[in-house]
Amino acid sequence: MISVSIVNVTSYTGLELLRLLACHPQFEVVSVTARSAVGQRLCDVFPQLRALTASSSVHPEMVITEKPARTDLAFVCLPHAAAAEAVLELVQQGTKVVDLSADFRLHDVAVYEQWYKHVHPAPQMLETAVFGLCERYREQIAQASIVANPGCYATTAILALLPAFAAGIVEPDVVVDGKSGISGAGRSPKQNTHYSEANEDISAYGLDGHRHQPEIVQELIAGAEAGGHPLANGLRLTFIPHLVPMTRGILATCYASLKPEAFERYASKEALRELYTEYYADEPFVHVVDTPPHTKWSYGSNHCFIYPVVDKQAQRLIVVSCLDNLMKGASSQAVQNANRLFGLSETTGLAGIGVYP
Amino acid sequence: MISVSIVNVTSYTGLELLRLLACHPQFEVVSVTARSAVGQRLCDVFPQLRALTASSSVHPEMVITEKPARTDLAFVCLPHAAAAEAVLELVQQGTKVVDLSADFRLHDVAVYEQWYKHVHPAPQMLETAVFGLCERYREQIAQASIVANPGCYATTAILALLPAFAAGIVEPDVVVDGKSGISGAGRSPKQNTHYSEANEDISAYGLDGHRHQPEIVQELIAGAEAGGHPLANGLRLTFIPHLVPMTRGILATCYASLKPEAFERYASKEALRELYTEYYADEPFVHVVDTPPHTKWSYGSNHCFIYPVVDKQAQRLIVVSCLDNLMKGASSQAVQNANRLFGLSETTGLAGIGVYP
Amino acid sequence: MISVSIVNVTSYTGLELLRLLACHPQFEVVSVTARSAVGQRLCDVFPQLRALTASSSVHPEMVITEKPARTDLAFVCLPHAAAAEAVLELVQQGTKVVDLSADFRLHDVAVYEQWYKHVHPAPQMLETAVFGLCERYREQIAQASIVANPGCYATTAILALLPAFAAGIVEPDVVVDGKSGISGAGRSPKQNTHYSEANEDISAYGLDGHRHQPEIVQELIAGAEAGGHPLANGLRLTFIPHLVPMTRGILATCYASLKPEAFERYASKEALRELYTEYYADEPFVHVVDTPPHTKWSYGSNHCFIYPVVDKQAQRLIVVSCLDNLMKGASSQAVQNANRLFGLSETTGLAGIGVYP
Amino acid sequence: MISVSIVNVTSYTGLELLRLLACHPQFEVVSVTARSAVGQRLCDVFPQLRALTASSSVHPEMVITEKPARTDLAFVCLPHAAAAEAVLELVQQGTKVVDLSADFRLHDVAVYEQWYKHVHPAPQMLETAVFGLCERYREQIAQASIVANPGCYATTAILALLPAFAAGIVEPDVVVDGKSGISGAGRSPKQNTHYSEANEDISAYGLDGHRHQPEIVQELIAGAEAGGHPLANGLRLTFIPHLVPMTRGILATCYASLKPEAFERYASKEALRELYTEYYADEPFVHVVDTPPHTKWSYGSNHCFIYPVVDKQAQRLIVVSCLDNLMKGASSQAVQNANRLFGLSETTGLAGIGVYP
Repeated sequence: MISVSIVNVTSYTGLELLRLLACHPQFEVVSVTARSAVGQRLCDVFPQLRALTASSSVHPEMVITEKPARTDLAFVCLPHAAAAEAVLELVQQGTKVVDLSADFRLHDVAVYEQWYKHVHPAPQMLETAVFGLCERYREQIAQASIVANPGCYATTAILALLPAFAAGIVEPDVVVDGKSGISGAGRSPKQNTHYSEANEDISAYGLDGHRHQPEIVQELIAGAEAGGHPLANGLRLTFIPHLVPMTRGILATCYASLKPEAFERYASKEALRELYTEYYADEPFVHVVDTPPHTKWSYGSNHCFIYPVVDKQAQRLIVVSCLDNLMKGASSQAVQNANRLFGLSETTGLAGIGVYP
Repeated sequence: MISVSIVNVTSYTGLELLRLLACHPQFEVVSVTARSAVGQRLCDVFPQLRALTASSSVHPEMVITEKPARTDLAFVCLPHAAAAEAVLELVQQGTKVVDLSADFRLHDVAVYEQWYKHVHPAPQMLETAVFGLCERYREQIAQASIVANPGCYATTAILALLPAFAAGIVEPDVVVDGKSGISGAGRSPKQNTHYSEANEDISAYGLDGHRHQPEIVQELIAGAEAGGHPLANGLRLTFIPHLVPMTRGILATCYASLKPEAFERYASKEALRELYTEYYADEPFVHVVDTPPHTKWSYGSNHCFIYPVVDKQAQRLIVVSCLDNLMKGASSQAVQNANRLFGLSETTGLAGIGVYP
Repeated sequence: MISVSIVNVTSYTGLELLRLLACHPQFEVVSVTARSAVGQRLCDVFPQLRALTASSSVHPEMVITEKPARTDLAFVCLPHAAAAEAVLELVQQGTKVVDLSADFRLHDVAVYEQWYKHVHPAPQMLETAVFGLCERYREQIAQASIVANPGCYATTAILALLPAFAAGIVEPDVVVDGKSGISGAGRSPKQNTHYSEANEDISAYGLDGHRHQPEIVQELIAGAEAGGHPLANGLRLTFIPHLVPMTRGILATCYASLKPEAFERYASKEALRELYTEYYADEPFVHVVDTPPHTKWSYGSNHCFIYPVVDKQAQRLIVVSCLDNLMKGASSQAVQNANRLFGLSETTGLAGIGVYP
Repeated sequence: MISVSIVNVTSYTGLELLRLLACHPQFEVVSVTARSAVGQRLCDVFPQLRALTASSSVHPEMVITEKPARTDLAFVCLPHAAAAEAVLELVQQGTKVVDLSADFRLHDVAVYEQWYKHVHPAPQMLETAVFGLCERYREQIAQASIVANPGCYATTAILALLPAFAAGIVEPDVVVDGKSGISGAGRSPKQNTHYSEANEDISAYGLDGHRHQPEIVQELIAGAEAGGHPLANGLRLTFIPHLVPMTRGILATCYASLKPEAFERYASKEALRELYTEYYADEPFVHVVDTPPHTKWSYGSNHCFIYPVVDKQAQRLIVVSCLDNLMKGASSQAVQNANRLFGLSETTGLAGIGVYP
């Protein structure tokens, strides 16, 4: 068994990792940390873990510590800045890390510091970290010691637009309208995530700039280049997220003008769908569908559903993409990455489909 | 008292009209119709109407009939096509009509027939009907005999973008990403509005074209012209609606590139907000706010909240606008229009603010 | 106009009072307090109040202070203990008070101190305070200087069971199973009211005793005595509340064994309904209905719906009762009481019916 | 592999069976039926099944037929009456059946016909069918050819009260107040399960008698007898269900007076909890917890959580019990039963814990 620690296990992403790893045949959770719950057992914080069977890879009576034990693998569920420091220590002791924070996603430290407003604690490691999107970097991930698990909005938007940018069919001028369930805001209670405020309400936020924007830009530029259609003048991308009254699920509606020659070719649904289907032909977790997808299809699973279509009148590509923000948008994608890190099949422990309805 | 009939009272918009008119000092409901409930009393269909007091303008024991009585005013809550036929009859007998359907919103019968896929039953009346947005046409409404109450998405998007088009500050290339609560789909149960399907889910729909698109286009073109900035080459507008797991509320996030000279001027929040605030300075129901608005602010009321902002990096105008789809998006806007039709203050019977939280 | 202050206006009950009083023809809000928001304007805390018209009785720009001004009337929205101290000061300066806390609901100071675990700050005033249930004490309320607004669960359960106890038809052995929307827990964010925890979940709480229990007991004993059927051996009452994933609404399902002779008489639905209908014949806000009621019928209104029925096999009376916990369960009942305090019609400013759907 | 058919696969319980069996190591779905969808593929009805991997035991392209193929095992997801006829045919051809309907749950055909208002189609088989509650009848199930999967409310209430009746500590006078998510009403859209009606609402239903009542009575009487404390005078049980605005989850709050001698002994939390803990000591899916349980703890899993407590003032036992109505209340309990039928470990394919939050 591969020994695993979960750093900041009392987060929602930490809890989801417990659920997933409890059924994972190769990983065994041997250490869990959380500053605010040192000395408590997992089942004190999450009474529902009493349901874990004796034979599971997670033990409900495990005591939460301040520092992780030395393990083969660690999942870091800390907020940015704190995450980088923890990752640094873990890597130095030889632990492979999947970092769920934003600290190692951006390659350019200046961009990081501009968006996150603090000095990066470990800029030297930005080069070795790999952006943890298996659909793009599975070979590099297999060799990495730090995997930077992508943001939930970023995963959704990048998967939606990669095929179009790789094929060079759209202008470098994009609007991404994101909609997320409220668990994306984390487990700490706040006024805007108080039930009575968030229920029966939708609102936009991050209108002065949301931190997933540079991730999306970085990866679409890279994807365009990898596809042989580099963006000479960069990418003009507006990303606006919205808070939707549901716990889980994230949906991105992406808009980009088709290049005139591409419009000729992809005005038919079939041609466009074929482009997308081929791009994701071998992916176990990305599915190009022929009806508009629903976030609930992915509830509790690692699956992403994508629906591309053309507004013929406006000659615009529209791609709707959705997934579970805590899963493919966080914890199950982290397990997918961890599987790669240890040479396991990517689908190990991730076979389930969405809980519906 | 002005006598009122409500045609197809068993719809959600019909029910909301009952609630509003029960407290209206000048209108008295004397006739209610609904094909599927002929012979039943209002309180048989809606037991909660038992709460109406004896002195109210609506009587819970009123019997539903097939045809409306001859009244001064009628609200028509039928689906399109059926609505036009009913309106025709009502107008011929001298009744003023607020039509909540789409039948008289589009001035161009060809556009109507292209989007609604049937022959318009009363094309000759398209010219006399007035688009029922008081913020634009209050003088014309006062003289009208048919007011075409705007669509819920259309109201939200048009109010969001009118100031920008009237001032000529944006390119004629717009994306409107709409999000609506589920009551917008009406009162008849369907698979996609079944609780277990719609709860904890968000999805896009109308991806092959939604019927509120031509309304928005028509009114933005007219607004641009009225503001002295006509659109020489028309308007390229993509509108994609989404179904959000809440009963009420509609929010539009609108994206348009700023013209270069406008960007210089409106990159500052203050200048942009001033433009918007001035445009709506005298409006009792449209409020330009300085934090992103929440649909719940408008719950059960006739108020619309608008938040304009610029994405400086992308030089794009973003306007977020929201209201209650059954109210300013339907029934209370209908009452506002009816107030105009009979020379009453627009706010009569509409003083309440949103029920929050 | 009668001058009004709202103490702790930043609570949900304070906000609801603002909404109601904005349309009240006789009360004018001239002073608002809140320790945590001193110096802020109402519209800073609640941006949606921008929708208030200039002519309203509430001014969105009103500045929040620490202490209330001297007014004719005050609504106190503080938690218990803090409330009693504020009430004391207000009464001493000649202000009539509607206290929304529990501090003056229980007549017996020992019972209060047992349940609330602290010394009552003003026991001498318990005698002069009147329990603010107009359906029982409207004459006393008219003469009072302190009205103790009943708890939300207590209002629901008492209204459900009063007719049965007044008529002496049930054994003094009752189960009240309460279900409340989450706004009942107040406006301060906590873990159990965090959206992601409370959504798509139901749970029981207060299993070691909930503080509304003694209120219900006190008032059912009094109601039995007033009806000429005093309870010689007291009342054995179990009350268990539940948290339901909705913002507003409270429903009580009440169970009590029918006395054998009463079973003979009330086994027929009609006889039982007649008993209830007669009891509430003149009440503008309590409605005995003939189908099981829905909390949503009362959304945003002061109305209560009651459905009594007999389980013939078990010879048990079941009464289902529901209302809006922030309205008849708090703020609109407070206005109803305030109307009585100043000799106005009880329905003044409370004419609206529930916002549905 | 054991071959499996699912009859009426387009129901929610059918869909959940697909999800569970897709990961089951021993069962292979080879036949699916649904009268309304004959000729369609599974993925036409449920597009999310596209996420199933090639190696899964369920094939998304499988065509729905009218009649099931001959298989080792069948799950019957039909409504009552239709179910019995299908079961009859299946058993005659040698297929073992787990019937999710009510047709074989009640041993007494007269009780069945009284509550279900039609003649039982196969009364002769009532004797051979086994009530599918492994916690009570695991030995009998292993030998059965028909397993009658219990109702969702019945499972919740029976598990809550069995230890008390088996130990003879309560009077035979019980109130069960049930609360269910809306998926319990099935997949067909109806007015009361229309999103806009059911959202933000709670209501009681079945006030004239709900069909799970006799199941609960039958099994508590049997449990009392099995525990050596037979109920000489039967059981007076009132059961009232409520519709809660959530998709999944069921919670029963059960009330019964403690016998005087039992009150002496079980007034302490510890003694009561010990009684319950011992009763379920070896159960993998029933967990006695020490804080009030939340339905969401069981979301998507086969686990049931039980919390017993005493109201000392009223000397009443209160037991709160909850589970996922589509899982332990239907489909995963059906798989647990099927595991028993074929000599597999009961937990096979059911290892997952609840998806939280």
